[in-house]
Amino acid sequence: MKKNMIIAQSGGPSAVINASLAGAIKRGLKEEGLKIFGSLYGLEGILKNEIVLLNEVFKDEKNIENLKNTPAMALGSCRYKIKEDSEDYDKILKTLEELEVGYFFYIGGNDSMDTVDKLSKFFKNKGHDIKVVGIPKTIDNDLMNTDHTPGFSSAAKYVATSIREVFTDTLSYDKPTVTFVEIMGRNAGWLAASSVMARANDCNAPHMIYLPERPFNEDEFKRELEELSKKEKVILVAVSEGIKLPDGTYFSASESQSHDKFGHAMLKGAGTRMEAIAKEMGFKTRTIELSLLQRSAGHLVSKVDVEEAFTCGYKAVEMAMDGKTGIMVAMERTSNNPYKVEYVPVTIGEVSNKEKSIPLEWIDGNDVTKEFIEYMRPLLGENPFKDHFRLDRKALYKK
Amino acid sequence: MKKNMIIAQSGGPSAVINASLAGAIKRGLKEEGLKIFGSLYGLEGILKNEIVLLNEVFKDEKNIENLKNTPAMALGSCRYKIKEDSEDYDKILKTLEELEVGYFFYIGGNDSMDTVDKLSKFFKNKGHDIKVVGIPKTIDNDLMNTDHTPGFSSAAKYVATSIREVFTDTLSYDKPTVTFVEIMGRNAGWLAASSVMARANDCNAPHMIYLPERPFNEDEFKRELEELSKKEKVILVAVSEGIKLPDGTYFSASESQSHDKFGHAMLKGAGTRMEAIAKEMGFKTRTIELSLLQRSAGHLVSKVDVEEAFTCGYKAVEMAMDGKTGIMVAMERTSNNPYKVEYVPVTIGEVSNKEKSIPLEWIDGNDVTKEFIEYMRPLLGENPFKDHFRLDRKALYKK
Repeated sequence: MKKNMIIAQSGGPSAVINASLAGAIKRGLKEEGLKIFGSLYGLEGILKNEIVLLNEVFKDEKNIENLKNTPAMALGSCRYKIKEDSEDYDKILKTLEELEVGYFFYIGGNDSMDTVDKLSKFFKNKGHDIKVVGIPKTIDNDLMNTDHTPGFSSAAKYVATSIREVFTDTLSYDKPTVTFVEIMGRNAGWLAASSVMARANDCNAPHMIYLPERPFNEDEFKRELEELSKKEKVILVAVSEGIKLPDGTYFSASESQSHDKFGHAMLKGAGTRMEAIAKEMGFKTRTIELSLLQRSAGHLVSKVDVEEAFTCGYKAVEMAMDGKTGIMVAMERTSNNPYKVEYVPVTIGEVSNKEKSIPLEWIDGNDVTKEFIEYMRPLLGENPFKDHFRLDRKALYKK
Repeated sequence: MKKNMIIAQSGGPSAVINASLAGAIKRGLKEEGLKIFGSLYGLEGILKNEIVLLNEVFKDEKNIENLKNTPAMALGSCRYKIKEDSEDYDKILKTLEELEVGYFFYIGGNDSMDTVDKLSKFFKNKGHDIKVVGIPKTIDNDLMNTDHTPGFSSAAKYVATSIREVFTDTLSYDKPTVTFVEIMGRNAGWLAASSVMARANDCNAPHMIYLPERPFNEDEFKRELEELSKKEKVILVAVSEGIKLPDGTYFSASESQSHDKFGHAMLKGAGTRMEAIAKEMGFKTRTIELSLLQRSAGHLVSKVDVEEAFTCGYKAVEMAMDGKTGIMVAMERTSNNPYKVEYVPVTIGEVSNKEKSIPLEWIDGNDVTKEFIEYMRPLLGENPFKDHFRLDRKALYKK
């Protein structure tokens, strides 16, 4: 009898994590007699025996397409970290044996890859033939040894689109303003940097981009803003939530939190804090936090991303069936123009608990380089603005 | 010789205000020899003689389609209110006479309709044959004597889509949370109420909707939230920025603002203030402000809205050519199923400086009634979620 498979989703949602699930299910269904189990709420489903059988629903091919085009996490997620030398290991093993599972797939980011690493080692050491394979997922794009991560490109498309729209909105008035847009990314600035893709003939925003990779210096920022305001009336600044001071502490935590009348701490983000500095300088300001919107926007996915997420799921099952374990499916860009990726296994220990930052040579002061833009361009899909930014308003400005 | 026309945009941007401009230009171009002037930054363009000639660019039919599908305000906007008995009147008259303008069109909301009212009266009183016609525009949907306003339906689609996506994101965790989403609308709750359109089989959010039309009572809110949390683990609350206390003051201004270390007032919106109450009660909370995103999202317009905005512009020129002045183009819904509107002129004095609220009989406690939903349904266009919410995740939850 074929061994069965189980799959779970973990960490923060993205708009395409269900596409990876759909890809894995699609490949799993090719194996006759194989049961495909889903663990609800990540690893916790296995620990609490909250497990569903997926074969029936997805016999209908249409439902695979439907799942592929539904954002967030159909199976639910958790932020559970497996404890060293805990009962967790035996509990998981017991459940998997009961279900006759030979293949375990975990869709997630750095922390989830740590789980893949630990479990694959545990099964091997105990002599159990259970393959464990990681499927990458994070809007942060901070996983090592993969060109990029599923989820990132769609979030980047959302960020670039929103920034272009917000900037076009602020241009409506003939008044000097500075708008800060705060973008996710605690330690790596990939998503904030992707805001550069908003630029077009009629959009020179974002005018400045502040990333965690480069220490934030308040005096320098003031000078840069002052200088810029001599050339530009309407300014937009992209700020990563994770920018840090020269001493390595988060800028967002740098000043003691204010409190409201209830004594509640009013946490301010990096954007709001930069706004306070600009306001102090006399600028008319506003901050927009893209918050959960940037990772949940299923209506604005990059098609490239959806297909890649799907294929990562598909290939993960294929690699496990080929006998691989303790690996993550990674993408290798073999050509940029035309854009091509290959799917390869990478050793999980080279991925788990590590973070990939933007190469410093792709950062130029408060901007990114052409190389970064070349890297980004294919990920958003062809001409992402073609349907809704059709006319350069400057065409009208002829007397 | 035919008299020329001039057109300007005013007030806050929306995703379809350029569609109204495109419609007016399209109709204007039908009149041979008519010059179509655009005033930059609303009325200020006429006062400062910042005026462009539009005929050349839009001879190319494609550019009309392109303008129709580009968000915000191609001509720019202002928040200028014409001063009573000021020199403004004579200045405007002088410029219009120099340009041989016989038709003046102003695309805007309540304040802009006040300008239309004043100018049409002034020209009439002075014996000048200049027709003045208003073209409605506001995401707030608060103009009198029109079924709804161009701009509203697209903003509503954005609000409903974002709420469904954010809620689906928060559902990923098996943890109790309360998310507040703050929506624009200082005095009328139309846009916040439109969040109800997020509801679907797999989305019962928003669970509570707080509108300016109904006084906000803190104790009542606490009871309602407490009660709801017994039934629902993951809660989403839609809050209008304009909710008011029983004494009529804005809830968002109700407690003295906190200050940061620079002494800056840290304005808190209605959502953040409600969040503080919920946090006090022990809930895990988050607030998301849709901010400028909800009015600038050209990528998510309602097609119904784009066509209606376009037609309002087109009809405005037609009505002016027919000799009408001191009017606004309004929409009259003649049938809801199938959805049909007619475009009719309404006397401007019945629109300017007035605000239309949601009828109280369409509000039921912290929710809206079926009648409101029936009113909304055709405005968002057919099945607005069909491409990106394809699978009800509950289909998977079978053991």
